[in-house]
Amino acid sequence: MGDSGAGKTTITAGLEGILGEDQVTAFSTDDYHRYDREQRAEIGITPLHPDANYMDILSQHLTLLRQGEPILKPVYGHSGGTFGPPVYVGSKPFAIVEGLLGYHDEGMRDCYDLRVYLAPPEELRLKWKLQRDSSKRGYTEDEVQAELDKREPDSAQFIRPQERHADVVVSFKEGEGAEAHSLDAEMLLRDTVPQPDLSPLIGSGERGITIDEGDSERHVNIAGDIESEQASEIEEAIWEKLHFASHLRSERLGEVTIGDDVHRSESLAVVQLVILYHLVTAKAAVALGGSGHRAEDEGSAAVQEDAATVEQ
Amino acid sequence: MGDSGAGKTTITAGLEGILGEDQVTAFSTDDYHRYDREQRAEIGITPLHPDANYMDILSQHLTLLRQGEPILKPVYGHSGGTFGPPVYVGSKPFAIVEGLLGYHDEGMRDCYDLRVYLAPPEELRLKWKLQRDSSKRGYTEDEVQAELDKREPDSAQFIRPQERHADVVVSFKEGEGAEAHSLDAEMLLRDTVPQPDLSPLIGSGERGITIDEGDSERHVNIAGDIESEQASEIEEAIWEKLHFASHLRSERLGEVTIGDDVHRSESLAVVQLVILYHLVTAKAAVALGGSGHRAEDEGSAAVQEDAATVEQ
Repeated sequence: MGDSGAGKTTITAGLEGILGEDQVTAFSTDDYHRYDREQRAEIGITPLHPDANYMDILSQHLTLLRQGEPILKPVYGHSGGTFGPPVYVGSKPFAIVEGLLGYHDEGMRDCYDLRVYLAPPEELRLKWKLQRDSSKRGYTEDEVQAELDKREPDSAQFIRPQERHADVVVSFKEGEGAEAHSLDAEMLLRDTVPQPDLSPLIGSGERGITIDEGDSERHVNIAGDIESEQASEIEEAIWEKLHFASHLRSERLGEVTIGDDVHRSESLAVVQLVILYHLVTAKAAVALGGSGHRAEDEGSAAVQEDAATVEQ
Repeated sequence: MGDSGAGKTTITAGLEGILGEDQVTAFSTDDYHRYDREQRAEIGITPLHPDANYMDILSQHLTLLRQGEPILKPVYGHSGGTFGPPVYVGSKPFAIVEGLLGYHDEGMRDCYDLRVYLAPPEELRLKWKLQRDSSKRGYTEDEVQAELDKREPDSAQFIRPQERHADVVVSFKEGEGAEAHSLDAEMLLRDTVPQPDLSPLIGSGERGITIDEGDSERHVNIAGDIESEQASEIEEAIWEKLHFASHLRSERLGEVTIGDDVHRSESLAVVQLVILYHLVTAKAAVALGGSGHRAEDEGSAAVQEDAATVEQ
């Protein structure tokens, strides 16, 4: 989850790519908008307001997917701002849901094995949103800025408060002279789910990966200009924890598309890999008879023990 | 349920009218078509085939409505043969579902308190379908006939076999020189649900209401040219069984629209009233703590006893 332009699609596209289309159901909660763009303008409501979305149906559909049931998912098209024919979404091993209000109420929140919130600094989010909305959605810069101003109260009231429900909060930040593919990444890992132990991966602390341990959370900082070699070592170490999912290994993580060019971002790759770690261990916990990642049951504990062994 | 042109909408419109929009959710299973008209033509499949419909989603939505949950219902438009934006359907006291394949599998069938199947003679159905499809859906007579020929195998394989799962089978028939509003009606009432005892209502047997009692079913015949006075007496007697729902009484039952004219059909009114009897007693059974009409539980038995008392 995260505000409009926070980088959700960039993160999830890489995860979808690595898991494979046949393994993952991916969609946006934007599909659950109650009104089309014209209706929203008439009513004077932003898409960030819960009343502008079928919140109970979103919750129902997340629950059905969690139970392994299919859904007939509505489809909202961003280019026209209207609804298309609904699509049948069958149950698959993984579901990745991105959007604005997916952690709004408890019923929804309980459906996720992992809750990730994207919280870039506002100036970076504006830049990303401008880039995307002017190129892919046909808006002018002034229109995007005006829309952001109109949305700010709802963003403050409904979107940003969801951060507190996240297990992982990700903030990309522009360092000095940083390119889009060399942004620093900060991950806040909370103890609300079993987090991977990254401490053996800490580098020199200069420009690499650093960890600040708190009581029930830790901050992991990955420098945007981390040496490719050091990033590879870190990624290798996380992949080793995922030995039981080694078939997923590929070089597709960390891709950032800017215009027509695809760049590799080491910090993005590490962030995606940490999320992938959670997806894969949660799935293994379910396969071992547990009810998921968040539940503290035997299945989950067994996987944790397994993961802990690998960490030695 | 019933084949295309069997008169489903004429029956349900009267029931919706009498129950009131705020009390009843009414929709067609046509909304659950998997393909639009163009796609069906490309694939070469008729809308009568289960594969041309989201059967599992229809079943899921019927179950959700039965549980009092809302659904986001797809919308198929017959004029254009395409899908519109889905609509939010909240839970209401009554749900009336009409369509082609609603009794196709057991999961669906269990969702209904009453299952009605419309089985007019094929020549009458053709006449009705021609009337409707040429006036409201813009087809020529040849097109309607060609479509019927193409659909016949699926109709025989998937639609007509559903008749056996109905609690009430309704057949309107054209008598000698009968007008559209003076058709004979035959109702087959099966003992699969507690049926109203209509025996005190039998008239002379000449041109009125007659009942043939079988072991686990009875045939009720209502003459299309039944005297208005006799029909009123019968309706009055059924309304008396529904004393606890007397607020529903109005003169809106039995309306048939032909072209721009609205006619009153006494036989249609009696058929609608028998269905209404089931809807209302099933609702009362649920209100008394039972699980519905079909379930043989205490709540249901209590209503039956109550109804029986009234019948004396």
